[in-house]
Amino acid sequence: MKRPFNFSAGPAAMPAEVLQQAAAEMLDWHGSGMSVMEMSHRGKEFMAIRDAAEGDLRELLAIPSNFKVLFMQGGGLAENAIVPLNLAQGAAVDFVITGSWSQKSLKEASKYADVGVASSNEASGHTTLPDPATWRLRKDARYVHICSNETIHGVEFQTLPDLAALGCNAPLVVDFSSHVASRPVDWNCVGLAFGGAQKNLGPAGLTLVVVREDLLGQASPHCPTAFDYSTVAANQSMYNTPPTFAIYMAGLTFQWLKRQGGVGAMERRNAAKSELFYGFLDGSGLYHNKVDKACRSRMNVPFFLREERLNEAFLAGAREHGLLQLKGHKSVGGMRASLYNAMPLDGVQALVDYMRDFERTRA
Amino acid sequence: MKRPFNFSAGPAAMPAEVLQQAAAEMLDWHGSGMSVMEMSHRGKEFMAIRDAAEGDLRELLAIPSNFKVLFMQGGGLAENAIVPLNLAQGAAVDFVITGSWSQKSLKEASKYADVGVASSNEASGHTTLPDPATWRLRKDARYVHICSNETIHGVEFQTLPDLAALGCNAPLVVDFSSHVASRPVDWNCVGLAFGGAQKNLGPAGLTLVVVREDLLGQASPHCPTAFDYSTVAANQSMYNTPPTFAIYMAGLTFQWLKRQGGVGAMERRNAAKSELFYGFLDGSGLYHNKVDKACRSRMNVPFFLREERLNEAFLAGAREHGLLQLKGHKSVGGMRASLYNAMPLDGVQALVDYMRDFERTRA
Repeated sequence: MKRPFNFSAGPAAMPAEVLQQAAAEMLDWHGSGMSVMEMSHRGKEFMAIRDAAEGDLRELLAIPSNFKVLFMQGGGLAENAIVPLNLAQGAAVDFVITGSWSQKSLKEASKYADVGVASSNEASGHTTLPDPATWRLRKDARYVHICSNETIHGVEFQTLPDLAALGCNAPLVVDFSSHVASRPVDWNCVGLAFGGAQKNLGPAGLTLVVVREDLLGQASPHCPTAFDYSTVAANQSMYNTPPTFAIYMAGLTFQWLKRQGGVGAMERRNAAKSELFYGFLDGSGLYHNKVDKACRSRMNVPFFLREERLNEAFLAGAREHGLLQLKGHKSVGGMRASLYNAMPLDGVQALVDYMRDFERTRA
Repeated sequence: MKRPFNFSAGPAAMPAEVLQQAAAEMLDWHGSGMSVMEMSHRGKEFMAIRDAAEGDLRELLAIPSNFKVLFMQGGGLAENAIVPLNLAQGAAVDFVITGSWSQKSLKEASKYADVGVASSNEASGHTTLPDPATWRLRKDARYVHICSNETIHGVEFQTLPDLAALGCNAPLVVDFSSHVASRPVDWNCVGLAFGGAQKNLGPAGLTLVVVREDLLGQASPHCPTAFDYSTVAANQSMYNTPPTFAIYMAGLTFQWLKRQGGVGAMERRNAAKSELFYGFLDGSGLYHNKVDKACRSRMNVPFFLREERLNEAFLAGAREHGLLQLKGHKSVGGMRASLYNAMPLDGVQALVDYMRDFERTRA
């Protein structure tokens, strides 16, 4: 069976190999007689699955030993509260506004912290990235928050800002939901990184938090114990029953990533995929992307048809060609192609071929 | 393949039919070309899955139309904070202590409310249930919390208390995690009921909350927006990305329950299963259960070998006979057999046969 190409922004396409393995093991994991879903989270079978998942992730992302890996629940939107509940102590927190997700994070944090805007690209319609040298960082900020890839607006930090080099001692908090594992992470720049799994890591319902150990132990008394990073870390993410099957699926995805050559290899593929797609858009008369070339996301490409009356025909034709979930986010309209790790170059080529043909015959 | 019988307290056994269907649909749900894991939660395919799951659950549990059904994340332990964050308003909340889970709920709620103990069975070692007529309920309590089935101590409310008949106007909050869908619910007695899915509803990572509409809209400013029941309800549990695959698996389980004849039929089966098992324990010289017969749980049966030196041999022999995950919770020791909906009478009979033989040959 030929599978269609699924460009969903998340929950998103997963590697077919991973899904095939999960189906094959569904009723009997490795001769245990149990589905992974049926295992006690404290039994030796699931503990082995969890430990392997963490080990493989640490290897893939080169996570230093002074960072804890937490498997949590609630997604990025819950973390928008959980991060300040753990780190802000009701004091100053600075945000760099680059699109919808950093805006949402600031709004939620305002319930728990004295929030400030260090910089904003709103005047450009969230199509640029402000130079870190121009950020207005407060001396007393408990942390500085960025969204390193804006899923809706399609802007991506190509390198993480080095706050220390800017004279700022606050830790950097990074929402890397939608490009985690698509490129290496410079952990020297990071205090905490978080992301929902449902783009590049696995199914929805699992949230990854990677936090430097010295940031633990500062949670507000209002923080639910199940979301206190210290408690989660001290219990190997087992204080409350973890989303066991989602962790298993993420673990299978990590094994798949290793078989692909790891995150460095994925980065080269993702660069090739996005170069093919942006190159086509820039050469087209019908389609266009509004984002400054210096900060275009390799993962999420919002694009527009100059003739909007063709939108529905475009989407219907795409579906007929096995090119799924291309409709843009309702807040910006148009189209969006998400080119996560599980999207092969063939899928991007198929999309370009369809779009070229559609432009030639319909526009 | 003959599957072993899995007595885990949770995550717990699931119906083989449900797992088989999930495996068969893993790469292509109903001709969509996508796994359920790969679907946008806002697309028509997943919305249909979610709507069917809610509809089937409402039918199975006979949930009145003035209650909202919420699909959330974090499990019972997270709800121990989320409930008071939504309902307590920092005021009085009364707890009925019947075992580990109600104790945990009280401890967490003390961060957000003026908690009181209306009654406790601690003096009996959590083996009895106090008569509701003796509960000391405060006039100003915002709500009264019970755990209607204590998973660790194995005591179960056979009927829910009618607080109004006791002269109390506060809503009853029920943690029904470990016996939801095993018997009907008298919603006339309930203000809010919550439960992790991983016992009787589906995989870990999904939390069910059923809340009367008049209790919405009272959340504390400290409540994370993703856990504000009003927000979750207003967004059909889609404010943050829901655990889509877990909802799908729960939906398949609901369909299976309907094919079995619904919750009334399950109650009759669960009564027969537990009567068989308790009858065997009570007639045995080696095994015993400590719980008052009037409040024994149909779902979770902690039991002990009078000769503790045989514990390891008992567990090893059980595994050889395809009887899995019988070890008791570390806080009480001994053994525990969880007889959730997915456990057939045949499984209980196989356990009894093994235990009888073990007693005859080893004790």
